[in-house]
Amino acid sequence: MAPADERRTRTPQVLKGMRDLLPQQMLLRQHVIGTFRGVFERYGFEPIETPVLEYLDVLTGKYGEDERLIYHFEDRGGREVGLRYDLTVPLARFVASHRAELTFPFKRYHIEPVFRADRPQRGRYRQFWQCDADIVGTASMMADAEVIMVWIDALSAVNMPNFVVHINHRQLLQSLAQVAGVPESQATTIHRGIDKLGKIGRDGVRQEMVAHGVPADAAERVLDLVELRGPAAEVLDELRRRLSGNRLAEQGIADLESLFRYLGEMNADPQHYELDLSLARGLDYYTGPVFEAMVTEPSIGSLGGAGRYDHLIGMFLGEDIPATGTSLGLERIIDVIEELHLLPMPPTVADVLVTMFDESEPSLAASLQLVSRLRGAGVHAEVYLGERRDLRRQLQYANKKGIPVVAIVGPDEIARNAVNLRQMASGEQVTVPTGEAGATVERLRVREQPGDGATGQ
Amino acid sequence: MAPADERRTRTPQVLKGMRDLLPQQMLLRQHVIGTFRGVFERYGFEPIETPVLEYLDVLTGKYGEDERLIYHFEDRGGREVGLRYDLTVPLARFVASHRAELTFPFKRYHIEPVFRADRPQRGRYRQFWQCDADIVGTASMMADAEVIMVWIDALSAVNMPNFVVHINHRQLLQSLAQVAGVPESQATTIHRGIDKLGKIGRDGVRQEMVAHGVPADAAERVLDLVELRGPAAEVLDELRRRLSGNRLAEQGIADLESLFRYLGEMNADPQHYELDLSLARGLDYYTGPVFEAMVTEPSIGSLGGAGRYDHLIGMFLGEDIPATGTSLGLERIIDVIEELHLLPMPPTVADVLVTMFDESEPSLAASLQLVSRLRGAGVHAEVYLGERRDLRRQLQYANKKGIPVVAIVGPDEIARNAVNLRQMASGEQVTVPTGEAGATVERLRVREQPGDGATGQ
Repeated sequence: MAPADERRTRTPQVLKGMRDLLPQQMLLRQHVIGTFRGVFERYGFEPIETPVLEYLDVLTGKYGEDERLIYHFEDRGGREVGLRYDLTVPLARFVASHRAELTFPFKRYHIEPVFRADRPQRGRYRQFWQCDADIVGTASMMADAEVIMVWIDALSAVNMPNFVVHINHRQLLQSLAQVAGVPESQATTIHRGIDKLGKIGRDGVRQEMVAHGVPADAAERVLDLVELRGPAAEVLDELRRRLSGNRLAEQGIADLESLFRYLGEMNADPQHYELDLSLARGLDYYTGPVFEAMVTEPSIGSLGGAGRYDHLIGMFLGEDIPATGTSLGLERIIDVIEELHLLPMPPTVADVLVTMFDESEPSLAASLQLVSRLRGAGVHAEVYLGERRDLRRQLQYANKKGIPVVAIVGPDEIARNAVNLRQMASGEQVTVPTGEAGATVERLRVREQPGDGATGQ
Repeated sequence: MAPADERRTRTPQVLKGMRDLLPQQMLLRQHVIGTFRGVFERYGFEPIETPVLEYLDVLTGKYGEDERLIYHFEDRGGREVGLRYDLTVPLARFVASHRAELTFPFKRYHIEPVFRADRPQRGRYRQFWQCDADIVGTASMMADAEVIMVWIDALSAVNMPNFVVHINHRQLLQSLAQVAGVPESQATTIHRGIDKLGKIGRDGVRQEMVAHGVPADAAERVLDLVELRGPAAEVLDELRRRLSGNRLAEQGIADLESLFRYLGEMNADPQHYELDLSLARGLDYYTGPVFEAMVTEPSIGSLGGAGRYDHLIGMFLGEDIPATGTSLGLERIIDVIEELHLLPMPPTVADVLVTMFDESEPSLAASLQLVSRLRGAGVHAEVYLGERRDLRRQLQYANKKGIPVVAIVGPDEIARNAVNLRQMASGEQVTVPTGEAGATVERLRVREQPGDGATGQ
């Protein structure tokens, strides 16, 4: 297909798995990012930025087999460089680089795109945004409670319903293999199995474990444990009884007891978090509690994962600094917001379009003066910039963009130092002195409320 | 130096020409970006986003010899890809990709990092942010006036003093070679020469032109023209007289007359823009008016360049769509803001640190409840998360971070349902009922005003 390459230079294409965002998509995205920033800052998390490109060896050796998804190349200086794969490893490198300049415990947030050469799917892109909040420099479970709280508040602030932060502990997961009496080498089989509990059910998981060589009674013991349900304090009591003497389990139980106590004292809404002993995520660099934010309706699954990683910074520093944190995936959250119409989706930024009545110089001057005056008063105001200035065309422009008010300055209005304002949705018109134009636009523009549904276009 | 590579895997490094941003730098940057966004949206510019990576052939053939600075590589699918070099070419590709979905004239802004494998210097990085505002789909000089207005308002909104938008026109520049009577092939020599007028003076430029083969009297004629000074209308009148019959010049003069008239009608502050016939920037894809925002104090030079580019979109679409726009370089603007202390530079996001009085459970619970209560009231509140909780250490933490207020909840306060609040700068202390803690923190926190200078740390 020889012409394809020629065509490519003419027809503009976006790379597979990447995408442009149109204004209306961006307005919603900026609103969500702004909301998250507000929540993060209310908790005292501070923003940082790291470069998109890192030395490749900063990134490698941290992600297991997913490492092959890192975009990498040799730069002109012969350096092997990679595009960041997440924001956690860059944070660890950042802390090691700037240790002397930071005050610990260090709380940072970071909202930026990351890159993975993954197979594109619905809701999965090769460039996507993560919203991370982490606390570095303390092993206290209060930090883990804070990052869960910030998740709950951030998701609540964008009106997300029906989400639950599932909480487990890596040491508890590790203890399961010991409990089951299977060798350490079979631990992965057990973790993979219980991770599928929600999908294939208890019988399915048991069969799969047995097929992988786990004795049937061991599989039963593990499943009895991970299926414990009830208030966290009671389940942890029961676990302590059953796993008495297992040091890994005891450490995990003690951590989780503190964590749940702190969450209660911080008034976390109990419908948004739960102990889930079947949560098996994060067996690479996690070292303590692990979390996953799940949404049940729509069934889009995980909105983000998180956990404690007390050894990751040590990979750069040669000395461990304890750390814990959370990561939300912006794209999926926005998918849910759009699907459920959780937030207002204004079609455009402008509140008013100032039209040009005709091509005469007094008309142009009056319109330019009016738009400057409106902007000076803080009103989001456009002036029609097209070269063909019939009024019908200008009204069509406002209509197509969803601009709620149109301002018309004709010869009569100019003579009276007035302006005619039309509310596009209702057709209501009012003529006011120019000095009142700003206040009248504020009154006439219609703002959608959350839950109104689709745009007013 | 064999150990260097080994060291690199241990000591964390940022790539040459790239950098991390620490929280205090990011807070200022976010403030500036937020201010620019506010100004852009007041003009009706709408945000878009494009991927960091593009097909390499989207980027090539647009930047002249600077094209060699594009970061590029072959991805795993065998595609030649590049990191975006600016935001203008991606906009052109975006418009061609989404033409049917956009309403024209289309006004967009875009604030994101771009990448150039340039030699790093003070103030010049390999990853840096551009803040672009462009108008696509109209040849009207009103659009050029708007993008100049938005520059003036954006720079004024961050308190930038002493900046001037220099305005010239590509056709006028082109006409200079004709006026001088030198062949088209010497035009570049003339443009390069006049571009140095500010640096090496009239004599220097004349000598340089002559050394490059321009006749001495031709060089004089060019210099007489580009050194014309005075109000734009008068200079343009004089130019029209002197360049009568030169069609390129007449087109440029007519455009600039409209442009300056519109700027006047929009009440642009005349100290912030001027006609500058020696401005020679932008001879690659610019086709009409060209602009450059310069700051004289500190002598950091250009804050951004811009101009009309009526043929760039046609390179993707096969059909021209006129367009004009501006680009501000965020890094230099922030350098000036920091050097002149133009904006408040709060040291941290938190207004208050809630301390832990001691290790007892009632103390921990009281502090966690208080911090939740403050956050619920919208106060930016931290709770001390360190594991060693002596009060001295907690006060040091607040002091080091510049948190303005500390809240102490001891046994007395718990018994009285009260909280002790200390203003760190003055040492002032007050004990208030817990329900009034939020309002009291708002009163006690000290906010810097613009111009206060360095941080209060």
